[in-house]
Amino acid sequence: MDNIINSERLINNIIELGDLSRDNGGILTRLALSESDKIARDLVVLWMKEINLDVEIDRIGNIFGIWKTSENKDKNPIMIGSHIDSVINAGIYDGCFGVLSGLEVIKTLQESGFKSSRPIVVGIFTNEEGVRYQPDMLGSLVYVNGLELEDALNTIGIDGTRLGDELEKIGYDGENEPGFIKPYAYIELHVEQGPILDKEDIPVGVAENLQGISWQKCTIEGEANHAGTTPTRMRSDAGLAAAKVINFLRNRADDSNKTTVATVGSIEFEPNLINVIPSKAIFTIDLRNPNEKLLIDEELAFKEYLEKLEKTDGVKICTERLARFEPVIFNKDLVENIEKVANRQGLKYRRITSGAGHDAQMMARICPTAMIFAPSIDGISHNPNEKTKNEDLIATSNVLLNVIRDISN
Amino acid sequence: MDNIINSERLINNIIELGDLSRDNGGILTRLALSESDKIARDLVVLWMKEINLDVEIDRIGNIFGIWKTSENKDKNPIMIGSHIDSVINAGIYDGCFGVLSGLEVIKTLQESGFKSSRPIVVGIFTNEEGVRYQPDMLGSLVYVNGLELEDALNTIGIDGTRLGDELEKIGYDGENEPGFIKPYAYIELHVEQGPILDKEDIPVGVAENLQGISWQKCTIEGEANHAGTTPTRMRSDAGLAAAKVINFLRNRADDSNKTTVATVGSIEFEPNLINVIPSKAIFTIDLRNPNEKLLIDEELAFKEYLEKLEKTDGVKICTERLARFEPVIFNKDLVENIEKVANRQGLKYRRITSGAGHDAQMMARICPTAMIFAPSIDGISHNPNEKTKNEDLIATSNVLLNVIRDISN
Repeated sequence: MDNIINSERLINNIIELGDLSRDNGGILTRLALSESDKIARDLVVLWMKEINLDVEIDRIGNIFGIWKTSENKDKNPIMIGSHIDSVINAGIYDGCFGVLSGLEVIKTLQESGFKSSRPIVVGIFTNEEGVRYQPDMLGSLVYVNGLELEDALNTIGIDGTRLGDELEKIGYDGENEPGFIKPYAYIELHVEQGPILDKEDIPVGVAENLQGISWQKCTIEGEANHAGTTPTRMRSDAGLAAAKVINFLRNRADDSNKTTVATVGSIEFEPNLINVIPSKAIFTIDLRNPNEKLLIDEELAFKEYLEKLEKTDGVKICTERLARFEPVIFNKDLVENIEKVANRQGLKYRRITSGAGHDAQMMARICPTAMIFAPSIDGISHNPNEKTKNEDLIATSNVLLNVIRDISN
Repeated sequence: MDNIINSERLINNIIELGDLSRDNGGILTRLALSESDKIARDLVVLWMKEINLDVEIDRIGNIFGIWKTSENKDKNPIMIGSHIDSVINAGIYDGCFGVLSGLEVIKTLQESGFKSSRPIVVGIFTNEEGVRYQPDMLGSLVYVNGLELEDALNTIGIDGTRLGDELEKIGYDGENEPGFIKPYAYIELHVEQGPILDKEDIPVGVAENLQGISWQKCTIEGEANHAGTTPTRMRSDAGLAAAKVINFLRNRADDSNKTTVATVGSIEFEPNLINVIPSKAIFTIDLRNPNEKLLIDEELAFKEYLEKLEKTDGVKICTERLARFEPVIFNKDLVENIEKVANRQGLKYRRITSGAGHDAQMMARICPTAMIFAPSIDGISHNPNEKTKNEDLIATSNVLLNVIRDISN
């Protein structure tokens, strides 16, 4: 018989933590290592201590609440993790849900008298959102040694602050070396931040992989000329060339058997006047695919298209790489474990690709990792209207609980 | 035998007037009714008086230099006109060339002892460029009663000034009612401001018409969503829809037997972030065609396309009219007169459509009107690199001279 979490307690904790960092206008903004992040950290650490977890902080400010016994303390622990920092004007679920579900899982297991064969740890990673400091997922990246600790501490934020100074200021500059806990497995429960589960009315997403990301900036140079006196055949219209690129990328994505997503989210024309043909178009390209080979194919097709466009449209094009992450494939056994539990609980579930980045993608470098997604209503994310139904929060938390119980049994 | 202008005198005058309004960095900016406009007006008025023209100013500041005799003073005059105000960081030919050619024509006719059957007038119209005060071609528009004088005088400029106050300040608030001279014919010589004559190596453009202009602002509203987690089929991408519009307009223009030009010169996305699907795209559309029916067709096709797009792309679209001018057809007899003279002088010429707006389009409302164009090297306009070869300035001025002589004989 599966265990069941205390759903009221979980929901109340999510609301309490969400209400903690609101400004006078009711806006929730909890940027990494800010005063409001400190207050939230303090509350969650308090909750960890209330259930007798050993709280350890590492040098990049990641927090770990460890439930261990004298019998299991030498085993590699199972880690449940996520983050509690937020974007500007955020919702209450992104990140916090995963952390608080982890605590609820431990509480439930403790209350049931469960004897875990391994320690169970709840991890809170620093600066997942990447709003105040770049890159995002910085804490977990440092934890898996993907970024030097000193470089991370020297990161300068959008407000001109040094990350290490801010970490010290809020008192979360711990003494443990990042990576000091070697998990046996890492599981992250998160809201989907996309519309798929909600549209298909499926309560449980089993993330089998996480998309690779290719970010580029493209600059097209044409020739500014009078919009009235220059026949179309004599134009080098940088804006038109940019429009062709946007169409091309979308057509490729639609033709890619639905595995590629491509987005041009920002654009700028020069001189940007109604009656002057654009001399310059600068725009960004966000390409994602869960398969590295396919992502490379997309990048190549894009490059070839630009070369063709330079000739057909008489423009000059250059691109600049802004970011590149390879796709991550989550651990097959863990994925099947999650499916098994969802099935056992009579919940509809589907495998899903994580379209967003998560701390789990970093942890996958050092241990077997998987993710569970709860539906986001209308796919709304990074927005105060972000919402997941309570029943879905509860159902996915119960899946997490019993997956943890199964693998620590 | 045709007359010939004094080409050295003409070129020197163009350069002298162009050098008059430069700032310390050598930039020529002569915004309407500014101090630098006053200085330029004063010089041209001086030149008018040097050749015994009667100088008359009207209440909107248009200047007229009238060459009349006791024999012809009761006839409707032939008017040669253009403007001497400029855009910011301008070249020396746009407008000034037409005015100074007009003066040179009168001087040449005076020196040859020519007895004109009608007075010949050189007109300088206020605020043609429309940079400081909207709309452009304001002085000629008021002159033909297309805009109330009081409304024009109350126009507030980009610098917050009232047009009437500035007119008074520079001393060009004349006493004549706009429209006080009823021309027998109006001819304007201007640089093409486009590449056609230069690319085809033809020194004389005979403008048979002037394009109608339709300016619109289009706002497309989609839905902001995460660029990684939202499958393309679930998107309402306002940026993609805008790109489709840009492509559609260009394809229509290319299919329109080359008579339509369509330009999207300015654009803006919201929220304009690399990893967020644009919720809004705001852009301008500049549509031109020399035929009113075809221009209406283009506007309708555009409207229908937007309606289709709202359905296919799940977006909401609204448009706002920013400006609309009907095409102008110039006077057939005058056009043929110009061709006859160019032919007689052994000059290559071609009929051409004016892609830009000119004072001639306003004057066409009250009298037979035509334009002569001189080639613009590389079509460059509204730019300090604007340039017309001296030989082309001279050739087109000689055409103007002999057209005036023919019709006033």
